[in-house]
Amino acid sequence: MAERFEIVEKTLIAMLEEKKYVTLRDILSTMNPSDVAAVFEDLEEDQIPLMFRLLPKELAAETFVEMEPDAQELLIRGFSDNELKEVVDELYVDDAADLVEEMPANVVRRILQQADPEMRSSINQILRYPDNSAGSIMTTEYVSLRPTMTVGEAILRIRRQGVDKETIYTCYVISKDRKLLGLVTVKDLLLAEDDETKIEDFMLTNLISVTTQTDQEEVAHMFSKYNFLALPVVDGENRMVGIVTFDDAMDVMEDEATEDIEIMAGMTPSEKTYLRSSPLDLFRHRIPWLMLLMVSATFTGMIISSFEDALSMLPALTAFIPMLMDTGGNCGSQSSVTVIRSLSLGELEFGDLLKVIWKEIRTAVLCGVALAAVCFLKILLVDRLLMHNESINLLVDGAVCLTLSVTVVIAKVVGCTLPMLAKKLGFDPAVMASPFITTIVDALSLLVYFMFAKTLLGL
Amino acid sequence: MAERFEIVEKTLIAMLEEKKYVTLRDILSTMNPSDVAAVFEDLEEDQIPLMFRLLPKELAAETFVEMEPDAQELLIRGFSDNELKEVVDELYVDDAADLVEEMPANVVRRILQQADPEMRSSINQILRYPDNSAGSIMTTEYVSLRPTMTVGEAILRIRRQGVDKETIYTCYVISKDRKLLGLVTVKDLLLAEDDETKIEDFMLTNLISVTTQTDQEEVAHMFSKYNFLALPVVDGENRMVGIVTFDDAMDVMEDEATEDIEIMAGMTPSEKTYLRSSPLDLFRHRIPWLMLLMVSATFTGMIISSFEDALSMLPALTAFIPMLMDTGGNCGSQSSVTVIRSLSLGELEFGDLLKVIWKEIRTAVLCGVALAAVCFLKILLVDRLLMHNESINLLVDGAVCLTLSVTVVIAKVVGCTLPMLAKKLGFDPAVMASPFITTIVDALSLLVYFMFAKTLLGL
Repeated sequence: MAERFEIVEKTLIAMLEEKKYVTLRDILSTMNPSDVAAVFEDLEEDQIPLMFRLLPKELAAETFVEMEPDAQELLIRGFSDNELKEVVDELYVDDAADLVEEMPANVVRRILQQADPEMRSSINQILRYPDNSAGSIMTTEYVSLRPTMTVGEAILRIRRQGVDKETIYTCYVISKDRKLLGLVTVKDLLLAEDDETKIEDFMLTNLISVTTQTDQEEVAHMFSKYNFLALPVVDGENRMVGIVTFDDAMDVMEDEATEDIEIMAGMTPSEKTYLRSSPLDLFRHRIPWLMLLMVSATFTGMIISSFEDALSMLPALTAFIPMLMDTGGNCGSQSSVTVIRSLSLGELEFGDLLKVIWKEIRTAVLCGVALAAVCFLKILLVDRLLMHNESINLLVDGAVCLTLSVTVVIAKVVGCTLPMLAKKLGFDPAVMASPFITTIVDALSLLVYFMFAKTLLGL
Repeated sequence: MAERFEIVEKTLIAMLEEKKYVTLRDILSTMNPSDVAAVFEDLEEDQIPLMFRLLPKELAAETFVEMEPDAQELLIRGFSDNELKEVVDELYVDDAADLVEEMPANVVRRILQQADPEMRSSINQILRYPDNSAGSIMTTEYVSLRPTMTVGEAILRIRRQGVDKETIYTCYVISKDRKLLGLVTVKDLLLAEDDETKIEDFMLTNLISVTTQTDQEEVAHMFSKYNFLALPVVDGENRMVGIVTFDDAMDVMEDEATEDIEIMAGMTPSEKTYLRSSPLDLFRHRIPWLMLLMVSATFTGMIISSFEDALSMLPALTAFIPMLMDTGGNCGSQSSVTVIRSLSLGELEFGDLLKVIWKEIRTAVLCGVALAAVCFLKILLVDRLLMHNESINLLVDGAVCLTLSVTVVIAKVVGCTLPMLAKKLGFDPAVMASPFITTIVDALSLLVYFMFAKTLLGL
């Protein structure tokens, strides 16, 4: 699939270089805008405007939306006012708002100059909503119907107005003062038995809507829960202001999952794709957590220092430190990641905390016993019998395995509790994933280790 | 939002207990099937059939689809053959196939007995496709048109056939031998100027389709890339066999992200939600990796054992082991997780390997220098001056910081390379995430540490 596309891409670029513009235009015209945009990714800077001018008007605008911001900016800087107006006219309002948000101020000024007054005011309206809110991802172009229309009139209105709307399949019924009254789908309208039926006798009135302030992650969940094509966005007085469509919800779902994964791995989330990020970008997103975690490992170091005497009396104890720390870290990150994902899918709430802790304790006991049993045998067979390490006797083995099982329980309880507390306190639970948990569990597991070593071995 | 819903839920359950069936039925009738299914989650076993029988027929079937498998099984076991037939008749084929896959054999036999012959054969067809393939998530209910139909005839056909189809908005044009020729959307049909236009002069012919064998993850990507409502599924001879709809693609996206996250945290992926998993379930999904990683930590232990003499000559060296191991692990997991996510979003391919390694090396040098500089000062100020640890001189400090920066580079190179190699070899790259990388990087960082310590400090 991907390889086949690369061949097509190379052929197209070769055609551009050989100036076979007519054939090139014919092929491009049959392609999907996302694929055309992907071809632009691999063009030289001076080829981009050349190829863009070959595209038919509508495809040009659709491709433009799918392009990376740097290519968009390059194109706009090269456009005449007329060319810019042609592209802007074809954009949906939400795409135009995204574009305005990405571009530098002088480019934005030109875009807004070329937009017609209605679009300009819609763009401004969308831009006023906070980042990541439903208002910021909605579009104001939807089909609205009046409750007193008949089915026939509604279909006629859709046929007249539909061409500029992002979706025509869900239509919203609003009153004169723009209050949201109900919805009808095109399916309902087409399958209606009688063209004279009034919309108000027919529409779905028990509506699920979001407000302009609803977080986009919650909006995306509602799509995956209810399987909607579009979701109406209302203001504080239930006045209809726009719709969010399923494709934008899909993008949000994908972005939010990526963001969670990045945060869980101890990075600040990035908007750029990996290949477009410079080493300096990557450095900036990665260094804060690395620095913080490195400095906090000082505590672990201090714990070890304070038990230096014990370690020098029985140096074999040192060899088990990495195994204890790693197993603790792995156990903790399993629990924290499971809880973080469940929180972000809305399957868990803070009220479930005790239930979760109890479940994790039971799981931890099972894991702890199994791990300790295998570890006990492994130490006996490998370290003692195979490697003839005389200083490892049954008591040492016991201290290590006891530490292991206690560490597993601590790790799982810490791992499940911290993300839920973070959520309760209004932080992003994803922060409480493996790097952070590992650092805490490391310190705790060492304390437990040395406590058992001292007690059991009398060091 | 969630709290408001809890209040509604409690009221409904109270009504059921007080036998206010008529009011209860009226309220349930206005609710969304997903929300009704959520109410069933909190009912006692004996209340489930009672409340289910209150639902109007269509809502009952839609709610049934959204319910958890254990509630579904309970209901089916209580159904008369007639009741079962009523529910099965209302199901879409893909939902029926999902149901059949979840239920035990004797329940499946009853379901298939009640399905009409056409549905039975469709279910069997879907079940024959491999798990996680497009064939296994598609539905066979779509609107098909003939190329010679006019726009008017097509609309008429949709009005006649549409009621049983999962989506009517994208219609597929197929030849007499079921080859996929093109598609038209209801939007195109409604906005067409002339009802007499032939479909073949009008349809989109440059189609993007998948085969029954295409992996569901790739299907989901195509939805998020192209913003389709539905995607046609064809067999090896380009004969149309079904469609995948956007709502199923959304579920796949969410499930695949969860699966990646679980694997990255060292768990085998689970189909059950966290709250529905028993401690034994969790144990089974978590113990394999824990066991493997614990046993492989034996190597780290061996490395430490073999440098026992050096450590006992300069015990202060031990205190830095956790910091070096953790920082290495964190650096490695940042790189591996970034690469894994980019691979699974299709932004990276194996061909980019050298580009990726070169980018990671430059990032690692930046991170390594910054971390080493801060670490050098921290050791000087905290360990040496503040804590008066006399055994830590500039040479020791230098050995630690040199190890730190080399470890960072190794960790990032290992972290980005292993997932890409895994992908190339046909394994799931997500396996190569932090737990696995950490174990490898731990061993490497200790080797580097002891090498520098020996060389610089002459131990």
